[in-house]
Amino acid sequence: MKILVAMDSFKGSATSIEVGEAVKKGIEESFKEEQTVPIKVTPIADGGEGTIEAIFYTTPNSIHTEHVQGPLFHQEVTAKYGIYDETVVLEVAETSGIMLVEKKDLDPWQATSYGLGQLLKKNIEAGYRKFIIGLGGSATNDAGIGLLSALGYDFLDEKGQNLGYLLKDMKHLSRIDASSILPELAECSIRIASDVKNPLNGQNGATYIFGKQKGVTKENRKEIDRILEKFAFLTNELTKTFYQVTPGSGAAGGLGFTLLSYFKSEIVSGFEEVATIIDLEKEIEQADIIITGEGMLDAQSMMGKVPVAIAKMAKKHYKPVIAISGSVSEDAVQCNNEGIDAFFPTIRRIASEQNILDKENTINAVRETAQQLFRFGQLFK
Amino acid sequence: MKILVAMDSFKGSATSIEVGEAVKKGIEESFKEEQTVPIKVTPIADGGEGTIEAIFYTTPNSIHTEHVQGPLFHQEVTAKYGIYDETVVLEVAETSGIMLVEKKDLDPWQATSYGLGQLLKKNIEAGYRKFIIGLGGSATNDAGIGLLSALGYDFLDEKGQNLGYLLKDMKHLSRIDASSILPELAECSIRIASDVKNPLNGQNGATYIFGKQKGVTKENRKEIDRILEKFAFLTNELTKTFYQVTPGSGAAGGLGFTLLSYFKSEIVSGFEEVATIIDLEKEIEQADIIITGEGMLDAQSMMGKVPVAIAKMAKKHYKPVIAISGSVSEDAVQCNNEGIDAFFPTIRRIASEQNILDKENTINAVRETAQQLFRFGQLFK
Repeated sequence: MKILVAMDSFKGSATSIEVGEAVKKGIEESFKEEQTVPIKVTPIADGGEGTIEAIFYTTPNSIHTEHVQGPLFHQEVTAKYGIYDETVVLEVAETSGIMLVEKKDLDPWQATSYGLGQLLKKNIEAGYRKFIIGLGGSATNDAGIGLLSALGYDFLDEKGQNLGYLLKDMKHLSRIDASSILPELAECSIRIASDVKNPLNGQNGATYIFGKQKGVTKENRKEIDRILEKFAFLTNELTKTFYQVTPGSGAAGGLGFTLLSYFKSEIVSGFEEVATIIDLEKEIEQADIIITGEGMLDAQSMMGKVPVAIAKMAKKHYKPVIAISGSVSEDAVQCNNEGIDAFFPTIRRIASEQNILDKENTINAVRETAQQLFRFGQLFK
Repeated sequence: MKILVAMDSFKGSATSIEVGEAVKKGIEESFKEEQTVPIKVTPIADGGEGTIEAIFYTTPNSIHTEHVQGPLFHQEVTAKYGIYDETVVLEVAETSGIMLVEKKDLDPWQATSYGLGQLLKKNIEAGYRKFIIGLGGSATNDAGIGLLSALGYDFLDEKGQNLGYLLKDMKHLSRIDASSILPELAECSIRIASDVKNPLNGQNGATYIFGKQKGVTKENRKEIDRILEKFAFLTNELTKTFYQVTPGSGAAGGLGFTLLSYFKSEIVSGFEEVATIIDLEKEIEQADIIITGEGMLDAQSMMGKVPVAIAKMAKKHYKPVIAISGSVSEDAVQCNNEGIDAFFPTIRRIASEQNILDKENTINAVRETAQQLFRFGQLFK
């Protein structure tokens, strides 16, 4: 029996590879010493945090780092990116990620995608023209204004004064000036890896739906949404495009909209992009059972999230799939109809949320769950 | 594949039979419609709450009820008892149980085993001489003084005044008068079903170890312990016995001591007593897999609690055993060395203790856990 372990990260607790290795260890512990069972762990991601780790897991030398501006104005971060087949893979989470900011410092007025623009510029200057950008896990709600600024766009008020690039300074935005932009931008193409379907503005838009976790309050969300609306209007004029209602334009605080509007680009499924690059389907074909999972398995999992996407792929090849997840929701049982043959939460006992989400406790719980499951499974052989 | 389900109750949430039926339903749901699998649910208990339900599950007509005094002085309860092969099975939990008292009303000075004495007397008068009494789940810390009172013993101060039978009135206990007792007591024999090993008095005794949950405070536990000590001393004089250091004399708030001292009696394992009567070993021999469990599987389970006791019995016949428990402790993995081949908690997600312990939620969680486990198990066939 060959086992493939392809776990999504348990967000806020442990990475894809950490939980995957825990599953492997647990399964190995379930077998008697003299037995061995081939277990392959492959990290997987959906375009959000962990995308670079997943794509370059077997070719770690293709990962590079660069110091760029972080999500906050006075912050510097060391951001990873990877190069694969002349294509540069970037993650907004690396330069402008929500995990890089302490919760108390989250501030949509200050948070910026400028660092992602710096990283893009650096690679364009190095000669690259093809990019994949994973949108997910951003701390920003600046609709990519920071990114555009790093590439030479200027944001002016009605008197022609340069406003900088922070959202707090865009209240009097009146014109976008493209006269200083990097000329190579026209030659660039971007695959936007995202599974978010929200538009830029309105009740279902970036600010209303994803703003809360980034520090948007009920009091300021209307004003922020209006600023993005104004920015979109000016963008439409400048680029002769109209993307603000396109599904996915609301991804990563509106960064989706800007990548669509200013670049030769298309939105692709984050999971499918990663799966294609790492040839996940081949791994699945060669396995006898696939183990997947994520932090919380719920009805949302039906909407293109990793475990159900893996289950769909596995079912094309009639392979059994089980999910090991931190928690499972009341409606998780629907996953049984989506190709997940059985699912198991790893939570062991009543404890505080902090205790349960702790990295070490999570890894132990995953390991023990896999161990006990495969002890059980062997009873049926 | 024949499945035997023998779950201990999830204390505070659901009975043995409720969780057992939930396991059965979950397993049935895991199989395709056309498949059927023989599943037998048998309730089990360890002498505590649920003992009568377990023993008389297949012969419910042997269960009778009687109105007697409850655990509190002004309380009347309807207590169950069962008759089996000329033997009367009683449970202290039925007459004087902690579940019969609201938490705020718990008071060791007032709580009494009088009702259990009434039930004993009634059955003695009806001609029965053989008894099994399950000690477990009592609200009382009265060392059985209430029970003795119901059978005719009088508790007197140094002036010979009758003190009644509540613990609060025993501060001046000076003599125990046996002149009015039921003459048939000498013909009675009692099997005391208990797995508690504590002595009557001291740091490891009834009051210090089990008193807290019955309302004994740090302030009054010393005084209460001394009253029980005085009672023991007077008992020794009267009965020419010495049981206060016998393991189990501290069971049910010292009731163990009194049953040992005043009756032809012996302490037997609650689990083994129940298992023998319902012929659990035969059920295990006829099954291919045994499913057991309890509210919390932990190192304590090693000490004669139901799941490990069942596992030991099953291992004599080389049968696989799995445990489904509400929670599992960090040291539960030791159960794998005690015959439990695999164990699984039923907790599904981070929620309040109240939400998790709720009866309906517990039953659903048990059902879903069994369902997903057997969906998983079938992948190995």
